[in-house]
Amino acid sequence: MKLYEELAESLRQRIEQGFYAGGDRMPSIRTLVREHGVSVTTAQEAYRQLEDAGLVESRPKSGYFARVRCSTPELPRVGRPVRRPIEVSKWEDVLNMLGAETPSKVFSLGHAMPDFTGPTLKPLLKLWSMQARRSDMRGLEYDSLKGTEELRTQVARLGNHSGCQLDPDELIITTGCQEALFCALRAVTQPGDVVAVDSPCFYGAMQAIKANDLRVMEIPTHAETGLSIEALELALEQWPIKAVLVTPTCNNPLGYTMPESRKRDLLLLAQRFDIAIIEDDIYGDLAYAWPRPRAIKAFDTDGRVLLCSSFSKTLAPGLRLGWIAPGRYRTEVIHNKFVSTAASSTLSQLAVAQFIAEGGYERHLRKMRAQYQRNRDLMVNWLEQHFPAGVRISFPQGGYLLWLEFASEVDCVELNRELSDTQFRIAPGVLFSASGKYRNCMRLNFVNGLDRQTEEALLTLAALIDQRYAKAG
Amino acid sequence: MKLYEELAESLRQRIEQGFYAGGDRMPSIRTLVREHGVSVTTAQEAYRQLEDAGLVESRPKSGYFARVRCSTPELPRVGRPVRRPIEVSKWEDVLNMLGAETPSKVFSLGHAMPDFTGPTLKPLLKLWSMQARRSDMRGLEYDSLKGTEELRTQVARLGNHSGCQLDPDELIITTGCQEALFCALRAVTQPGDVVAVDSPCFYGAMQAIKANDLRVMEIPTHAETGLSIEALELALEQWPIKAVLVTPTCNNPLGYTMPESRKRDLLLLAQRFDIAIIEDDIYGDLAYAWPRPRAIKAFDTDGRVLLCSSFSKTLAPGLRLGWIAPGRYRTEVIHNKFVSTAASSTLSQLAVAQFIAEGGYERHLRKMRAQYQRNRDLMVNWLEQHFPAGVRISFPQGGYLLWLEFASEVDCVELNRELSDTQFRIAPGVLFSASGKYRNCMRLNFVNGLDRQTEEALLTLAALIDQRYAKAG
Ligand SMILES: Cc1ncc(COP(=O)(O)O)c(C=O)c1O
Ligand SMILES: Cc1ncc(COP(=O)(O)O)c(C=O)c1O
Repeated sequence: MKLYEELAESLRQRIEQGFYAGGDRMPSIRTLVREHGVSVTTAQEAYRQLEDAGLVESRPKSGYFARVRCSTPELPRVGRPVRRPIEVSKWEDVLNMLGAETPSKVFSLGHAMPDFTGPTLKPLLKLWSMQARRSDMRGLEYDSLKGTEELRTQVARLGNHSGCQLDPDELIITTGCQEALFCALRAVTQPGDVVAVDSPCFYGAMQAIKANDLRVMEIPTHAETGLSIEALELALEQWPIKAVLVTPTCNNPLGYTMPESRKRDLLLLAQRFDIAIIEDDIYGDLAYAWPRPRAIKAFDTDGRVLLCSSFSKTLAPGLRLGWIAPGRYRTEVIHNKFVSTAASSTLSQLAVAQFIAEGGYERHLRKMRAQYQRNRDLMVNWLEQHFPAGVRISFPQGGYLLWLEFASEVDCVELNRELSDTQFRIAPGVLFSASGKYRNCMRLNFVNGLDRQTEEALLTLAALIDQRYAKAG
Repeated sequence: MKLYEELAESLRQRIEQGFYAGGDRMPSIRTLVREHGVSVTTAQEAYRQLEDAGLVESRPKSGYFARVRCSTPELPRVGRPVRRPIEVSKWEDVLNMLGAETPSKVFSLGHAMPDFTGPTLKPLLKLWSMQARRSDMRGLEYDSLKGTEELRTQVARLGNHSGCQLDPDELIITTGCQEALFCALRAVTQPGDVVAVDSPCFYGAMQAIKANDLRVMEIPTHAETGLSIEALELALEQWPIKAVLVTPTCNNPLGYTMPESRKRDLLLLAQRFDIAIIEDDIYGDLAYAWPRPRAIKAFDTDGRVLLCSSFSKTLAPGLRLGWIAPGRYRTEVIHNKFVSTAASSTLSQLAVAQFIAEGGYERHLRKMRAQYQRNRDLMVNWLEQHFPAGVRISFPQGGYLLWLEFASEVDCVELNRELSDTQFRIAPGVLFSASGKYRNCMRLNFVNGLDRQTEEALLTLAALIDQRYAKAG
């Protein structure tokens, strides 16, 4: 064990023993140097380790603090989705949530827009602006079908963080992760096929399933360990499933990360039944633990995993930049990419590639991981205090979304309707089910922690629940 | 008749009588004022009219010149495509042409990239750069599903030029015209259906047909008047066709614009057989005549026309901005747009909207129309002189693409293979057919007129044809 690791370890023990409570100031670098007889670099390195592990946070000009920690809350129950393949419905609800047809600004507690207002994203905007003024005007050209070499090279390099060996020449840049999922689905299925998904499941993926005339088999998930391998195995034995689509790392909406052993089990199962895995890793780089958890793709030996991701959650969705590492399905994916959009925006690719190459991406991630983890803790604590008794709360390991389960009488679709007099909206659980389940659940973002508007919205919601379901919980 | 119209008319007659040959200097504004006793404004307005009609061109600091005109060349023959619905093939050839897998820079005579190097596009880059630095960072947000209001408003306004009454709220912004076509096709068909197309037809549209498991019915076209209404009628009587996909204005690859009466006939036919029309208008604003020809959509009374277009040819393809006016198919189109890419790039929409609002788009168009028309004339003249006898050449009414038909023995796929030692490539006609027809044809761009590289490439090609097909022609 290196010296800084020993130091980090002893500090970690003291935190876990309650020596430092959440929010307490940790010893300064100077104190550590004096008391432990180590160098400044060693002390700093120790704190960096603890920061990566999510145990301390640094506050500018004030030093290190033990995190506001909260123990795992009462978790949502494992869902009981329909036990056979069904067609996806709910498009009307999605359309409603997206606010596509409502011109007025509403404040959505459930939307999934990251925070891009911080200083660490400013350099990206500057690069974007500069790229627009390149004298060769490359931003105006048709991009190559698979994307610019600059960005593919950087994405391949970032793949190391998730344990993936990506070849820039195999990668295909897409217009967001949505296009990656869409092309992946089309590459591995025919109309009428069945696709298994983790349930609850991102509505964009399910609507893509619907649009391609596929049926969905919803597999229950555990709020901490994700997709039930056992349930999937049963389903595979019973139904002619062609692919499984999962978000195993920093899941949307539950926030769990599947343990590595379960990721491996999932892969083994896919091999045994010879099906493809569409792995949505869009929130993976926002895992609070660093180095981040490995992707299923990291263990893929026969190219059956199609890894889909984007910069929409880590940087900004307006970029519309995603990618896919398509494994053995490259031919099909590239045809689908061509016919759906021909090429992606050249200029934003060049800007993002340069931003990553200059270290801006990793700097930004470090900051956002810390911010979102802090916000999670604040939010979970707050919800436990202010929300109706009996509420169950997921405990995300990354990202900025969590899942709330209320008593079974609570109807979130109805609540949303009642909120329509206010400017507030929620993302009801039904969006995440093919079959209208999860009515008593909702997705909640904690991007901005408990700012005034969020707190006001949450209090309005809590009051509404109390009033309408007085006996509930 | 207004004074400037009278003056324009008398000048027009003198040009048509050969008084001024192509390339001759026209009387200066001062001369007109003196000789005709009109005001400077009137003289200028007269020239502006003649310019819009494509009869004169202005050269900076040297005044007005009669255009290099050439009479209609020997036109390509009407094709005889397969007389039944078939599946689309040729993806390998398209992939090859797109150069997706070849890293080295090749010079393609057939590609369809517009000229974006001129000064009239500079303001767009500046606006783009400025938008990236907006303090509200709107460029980073998820755009609304249907696109920014700013851009939809401008696109609706531009619709007036093509005679279309577009409602900004009905329009949907897409990631290029390719996505518009893709969503349109998916909105009006089910797998297995038949779609009629004008043949030769843009390969991107045909590959989208292939990807959606549709079959294609190729309808012959005339090099001047476009799609054969008669042949389409016969096909409609015989086959269960669901939609017709056409590029009736400044067609790619032939360059024709269907006369308005034929556009109306096409619409009547679609009404009679109750099918949808997918109208690709991507080159429409580059018609040499101004005001530009009206779109079929202009006559649409029952919402059966899905108008698809983009800024890829008029401004720059790297923007990846298109749109669709989906008529009665809006619900289906918006679902397809959501599942394929969720949203389009926000920042470029804002930049383009501002560019249009400030008059930059129309300024740029005026310049490009004149440039492309001049280049057409130069190119057609040159081809008639230097190309093998018997070559047939289309005579585009807009855009920057033409179609060459060689003697039937000439095999353009083979020529491309033989060119592989050089840096030059052509776009063989087979790309534009579902069934491998048009081997003796190719598409040629005249974006840059006869610059040195283009002339060198064309001479290489002509020599190759002469050598290989000595007896041909
Ligand atoms: C799990 C998941 N996958 C994919 C997407 C779509 O991402 P993008 O905006 O990059 O298309 C989202 C966006 O909300 C998501 O949450
Ligand atoms: C006739 C036609 N339609 C559609 C497209 C696709 O356009 P975009 O680049 O805007 O997706 C092209 C591009 O070459 C085209 O020529």
